[in-house]
Amino acid sequence: MALTPSSPDERRSVGFGLLGYGFMGRAHSNALRTIPYIFWPSTGCPELVGIAGRTESSVREAATRYGYASWSTDWRDLVSDERVDVFDNVGPDAEHVEPTLAAIGHGKHVVCEKPLASNAVDAFRLYDAAANAGVKNLVCFNYRFFPAVRLAWEMLQGGELGELHQARFRYSQEWRTDPATELPSPTGVLDIICSHAIDQARFLCGEIASVSAEITSIAPARTYRGAPAQADDTVSILARLDSGLVATIDASLVSPGRKNQLAWEINGSKGSIAWDLEHPNVLQVYRRDAGRTAGFAEVIVTEADHPLVAPWWPSAHVLGWEHAHINMLAHFASAVADGTPVEPYGATFLDGLRVAQVAEAARESAATGRRIEVEEVPAR
Amino acid sequence: MALTPSSPDERRSVGFGLLGYGFMGRAHSNALRTIPYIFWPSTGCPELVGIAGRTESSVREAATRYGYASWSTDWRDLVSDERVDVFDNVGPDAEHVEPTLAAIGHGKHVVCEKPLASNAVDAFRLYDAAANAGVKNLVCFNYRFFPAVRLAWEMLQGGELGELHQARFRYSQEWRTDPATELPSPTGVLDIICSHAIDQARFLCGEIASVSAEITSIAPARTYRGAPAQADDTVSILARLDSGLVATIDASLVSPGRKNQLAWEINGSKGSIAWDLEHPNVLQVYRRDAGRTAGFAEVIVTEADHPLVAPWWPSAHVLGWEHAHINMLAHFASAVADGTPVEPYGATFLDGLRVAQVAEAARESAATGRRIEVEEVPAR
Amino acid sequence: MALTPSSPDERRSVGFGLLGYGFMGRAHSNALRTIPYIFWPSTGCPELVGIAGRTESSVREAATRYGYASWSTDWRDLVSDERVDVFDNVGPDAEHVEPTLAAIGHGKHVVCEKPLASNAVDAFRLYDAAANAGVKNLVCFNYRFFPAVRLAWEMLQGGELGELHQARFRYSQEWRTDPATELPSPTGVLDIICSHAIDQARFLCGEIASVSAEITSIAPARTYRGAPAQADDTVSILARLDSGLVATIDASLVSPGRKNQLAWEINGSKGSIAWDLEHPNVLQVYRRDAGRTAGFAEVIVTEADHPLVAPWWPSAHVLGWEHAHINMLAHFASAVADGTPVEPYGATFLDGLRVAQVAEAARESAATGRRIEVEEVPAR
Amino acid sequence: MALTPSSPDERRSVGFGLLGYGFMGRAHSNALRTIPYIFWPSTGCPELVGIAGRTESSVREAATRYGYASWSTDWRDLVSDERVDVFDNVGPDAEHVEPTLAAIGHGKHVVCEKPLASNAVDAFRLYDAAANAGVKNLVCFNYRFFPAVRLAWEMLQGGELGELHQARFRYSQEWRTDPATELPSPTGVLDIICSHAIDQARFLCGEIASVSAEITSIAPARTYRGAPAQADDTVSILARLDSGLVATIDASLVSPGRKNQLAWEINGSKGSIAWDLEHPNVLQVYRRDAGRTAGFAEVIVTEADHPLVAPWWPSAHVLGWEHAHINMLAHFASAVADGTPVEPYGATFLDGLRVAQVAEAARESAATGRRIEVEEVPAR
Repeated sequence: MALTPSSPDERRSVGFGLLGYGFMGRAHSNALRTIPYIFWPSTGCPELVGIAGRTESSVREAATRYGYASWSTDWRDLVSDERVDVFDNVGPDAEHVEPTLAAIGHGKHVVCEKPLASNAVDAFRLYDAAANAGVKNLVCFNYRFFPAVRLAWEMLQGGELGELHQARFRYSQEWRTDPATELPSPTGVLDIICSHAIDQARFLCGEIASVSAEITSIAPARTYRGAPAQADDTVSILARLDSGLVATIDASLVSPGRKNQLAWEINGSKGSIAWDLEHPNVLQVYRRDAGRTAGFAEVIVTEADHPLVAPWWPSAHVLGWEHAHINMLAHFASAVADGTPVEPYGATFLDGLRVAQVAEAARESAATGRRIEVEEVPAR
Repeated sequence: MALTPSSPDERRSVGFGLLGYGFMGRAHSNALRTIPYIFWPSTGCPELVGIAGRTESSVREAATRYGYASWSTDWRDLVSDERVDVFDNVGPDAEHVEPTLAAIGHGKHVVCEKPLASNAVDAFRLYDAAANAGVKNLVCFNYRFFPAVRLAWEMLQGGELGELHQARFRYSQEWRTDPATELPSPTGVLDIICSHAIDQARFLCGEIASVSAEITSIAPARTYRGAPAQADDTVSILARLDSGLVATIDASLVSPGRKNQLAWEINGSKGSIAWDLEHPNVLQVYRRDAGRTAGFAEVIVTEADHPLVAPWWPSAHVLGWEHAHINMLAHFASAVADGTPVEPYGATFLDGLRVAQVAEAARESAATGRRIEVEEVPAR
Repeated sequence: MALTPSSPDERRSVGFGLLGYGFMGRAHSNALRTIPYIFWPSTGCPELVGIAGRTESSVREAATRYGYASWSTDWRDLVSDERVDVFDNVGPDAEHVEPTLAAIGHGKHVVCEKPLASNAVDAFRLYDAAANAGVKNLVCFNYRFFPAVRLAWEMLQGGELGELHQARFRYSQEWRTDPATELPSPTGVLDIICSHAIDQARFLCGEIASVSAEITSIAPARTYRGAPAQADDTVSILARLDSGLVATIDASLVSPGRKNQLAWEINGSKGSIAWDLEHPNVLQVYRRDAGRTAGFAEVIVTEADHPLVAPWWPSAHVLGWEHAHINMLAHFASAVADGTPVEPYGATFLDGLRVAQVAEAARESAATGRRIEVEEVPAR
Repeated sequence: MALTPSSPDERRSVGFGLLGYGFMGRAHSNALRTIPYIFWPSTGCPELVGIAGRTESSVREAATRYGYASWSTDWRDLVSDERVDVFDNVGPDAEHVEPTLAAIGHGKHVVCEKPLASNAVDAFRLYDAAANAGVKNLVCFNYRFFPAVRLAWEMLQGGELGELHQARFRYSQEWRTDPATELPSPTGVLDIICSHAIDQARFLCGEIASVSAEITSIAPARTYRGAPAQADDTVSILARLDSGLVATIDASLVSPGRKNQLAWEINGSKGSIAWDLEHPNVLQVYRRDAGRTAGFAEVIVTEADHPLVAPWWPSAHVLGWEHAHINMLAHFASAVADGTPVEPYGATFLDGLRVAQVAEAARESAATGRRIEVEEVPAR
């Protein structure tokens, strides 16, 4: 006998147009290609409509490599193409605002890598435009989509930690430790990584009311592609939340040995939890009611009944860094296809705006030595 | 302007036919779909020719889900199809021998999930047939393909640990801890997981000369789908290697809290190394020459210059369980496309045979209370 | 034959008079009794001259229990006794100033538990009096005397971490987590434990120039023996050091699961180190120059060539909490007997004063929302 | 006023005579001096009657250093002295039998460091003599007296782990790793450290019925003080217990990085526990019934309600290596003073005999390649 030809996948698809083909382009493309068979049989499977980028040879190669149906060196082709349902902006930070606004103008749903914008004014423009247009929007605070982080969120939402007493968030890396080198990025610690730490703090514990901050640089005159780069290598923030909780939030690009350590600990009246991106599948949990064998438990969050684990492997098979991106974009594709909300799991442009406001307040505090109130979200 | 249609991927592809659509079918399909864009621009990108399995509705759905071009409920259709270059057998253990032999008979390259066979005679038949046919062959001892395990192998090959003094290997899981339940698998601890531990011991430290063993069961009368299942829940082996090194190798399906702990430690004259699948990106390394700050270092093996990391993400972005499978099948696809050897990184049917021989010697030792020499590989 | 009577120990002894017989009285008495045979044959072995305390039955029992030659319910008897060389004040915080000043007035060398005083004015009085009298003085920042902390200090002094980039210090405990209970202590988090964290920061990284701080309380109206107690349960400090280094220093008495976690991490241009009192024998060390097996090494600091390990057990036998106190008081007794300096290893009243100044600046910052410069040490 | 002279300690004391003044002599002397004030107000406080040893200058100095009332170069003076209630033998392994038998002959209670004897025949003579004389007897398996080990024992006795499924015990050190050096001890791995691992296995899990074993040496011709030393550097044992439980027990003196790693893990139907002497205050506990936050909990066993913690410091202050010895000798002194039993917490000469029998069976198995039944305790 012979093999029988297969039937096509006839689920409703969501057309994606991607701006960018670097590291993040690879991570997003990987997600878009993986979602259809991993999140089977959910609706809203991504279709790779087109990819745009600056350099023709590179973008053409990326299109073939990842299987995009088409390509362009001009993102305007992408945001205006009718097959594109979602404009996914993973371009350089400096290209977050204009293309995304244009896509919204064409009625596209929009995804934007963090930081949403380098200042709160631009972040507000994006937030406001998306809200006015009524399009789904997402800022890629991908670390919300690790199973262990979701479990933490669920525990906090369910009151399992009781009243919160103290918290600390950090994101430490080491790749700018050598002061003599050119930088591979023009932005500084607040945008590159501290934005993730701020978002984790807000996601898990609530809005930030005020901050005091210090910022340092180990080499103020460094450059990116010959032009001056943002010099801030470390930032340390004291944040007071609306709830009264005080959290330290610090980040550093010059911390040897900390390869990719987004980590936090939250202490509450009923227990404590802690997480570390270097061991992303593990949630540390302490419950006060555990009696004489109470201790921080290393909970390997890979049980198949967890919503972010279920689509993947049987219990106890660990996920890696990329899976948070895949889970995040699957969530967004479903939101687009099914009309379900992006929040509270996904970060919206409102979250991107809030993070930008906190970063701005931190910069002002570092400059003035004063505790700075984070501004309200302006009326629209 | 409009988007430009993309060019097709014209690299030499390797046609895969898969038998099986369960957990392992998903893992292999995921690998086959991911390799083309991650291992860009290597040759030998997998093409999903066909999938076979017992139940028509399931195999048809799997074909659509994973994008196989065709399907059949009879694996004979697969092994005889001329578009198939590689027959990849992830079917039930009881279906490892006949279909794989048939595929070899058709001149196909062959991949087989572990254990290669449930006894050494059958394993030899497969090894012998593949050798006679001159086809590439691979047993899926996937854990060899974690970057941390590869680094360990390189260190050992390079003599960085000096003379080996003692070693211990374990694979502990907990899912058979409840004696009252039906089993989800008909085979026992030796085949299911201890085979991995034995392969790691051989891969890293060399051939096993003799074994003493104990085997226990917590519920001898358990069943799988109503039929009696292999009852061995734990196995403990003392292995003496050709080199004189003594290693303990133990495994258990009834160890609460050990979700998926394939772990080992190797002590040598110059240092020690240790690894644990529950934290697969980390290699623990102790170097005697490190002076007053000598200590077991938690080496996060995610540097981009590592051969198993390079195709993936920038430094410091951890991989998950599935990546070992992807790395392994990429290696095999390259071996097929380029005519390069599968060994030493990949486990061949010879490795599958050796593991079966060790398992058999362990069973004999447990039954007789004697140290059993592992038999020689028979002359062909 | 019969046993031969032993010869007495004829080393020069240092007479100690202790004020207090609670937990700290036990720790100090244990140290004084242990030093003579562990720090053999060093001079300056403590002699337990007398003990004072409020309640006659308790102090009399303590004298017999610990082997003090005499006792009194009035500390004035102790500070005026000519056999007393060292007045060791482990009484309540509120009794740190007057008795210690009186002892200095009698020309006694003085030891005082932390905090030296509850405000900078009193701390200055003690510092000034001791300096004028030319007596040896020590504030019991005992954690400086763990071998792992000393090794860290040596590494930092030797420049092994290069330029310092970022640091974080914390001291978390959980025993005030229940807001309904009476407190076992009238003072708050700054005095009880944050003082240790501040001292570790200064000892390892240098003087603190300015601070921003937040302080919270989970139950502002709590009492100690019926009287209002200091309510501050958590404190979070951003400290900028004279060197420009920014460190976070936080402490909490309401952090479940953190039994006694004085912990810190220091990142520099050449590497990073970290320590945690819950595992006090371990120093975590990362060296950038360690090549492809660089990782945080768990250095078990129990090698017999370490100055704080040498008097104790052979390599690899861990010490406990009390050993820091014993090491500290042995160091002080030697300083008294041999006329050697207490600093830099031991904390003097100048250190006690500096910590009090930082604590005061933290309180002012928390109240005003401004970054506060730590005041200069006043001229004497 | 003047200080009041203290009253003497009038509790019933137990006279100790110590043979040996090396490392273990220091550890025991430290314990005997510490017990009176730490275990206040318990009866049975040790009195340091006399110390014996080979070299006059050393033993005389030890007597002064530790405060023994008298000394001798002949242990016969000690075992016959009427002030001695307990003969505590910490002499070289070769001096365990004759002096201890002599002490029993004088009706002394006896303490003996491990191993009780180098063979089962001698161990039986000691066990038999002590039983006939009706004297209290103790073998110094000190690690039973860590709070975390006691908690484990209590959990196992209380059935908190359910049926036991698998266990592993190890004791690894590194100090014989260099094959070129003279040894600091004439005995091998079985006596020096594996005896502790065997005792932990028996103490926690029950009697051992049979063993299979392998023994290796990295330098068979090494010497101690010029004379040939026992060469066994590693031993690996498969033990089947009376209960049917299979445990691996291995030990090594040539494992770099393992400073003093007596460690074990026990898996049962309800959970698992693990412990490691390098972090002695921590018990790892996994409970199957902990729900979605089940994970190995790092239980810091320093709660003040634990019987081995209560005499020491407040909750959360870690103990060190020496505290197990102090706890053990306090327990024995109480048993002598109060007539209470040494078992089950303390190891008696019967335990010493059982360990010697297991070691002997392991040697026979290694030599013959057969599983060896551990002999019955002979009838007396």
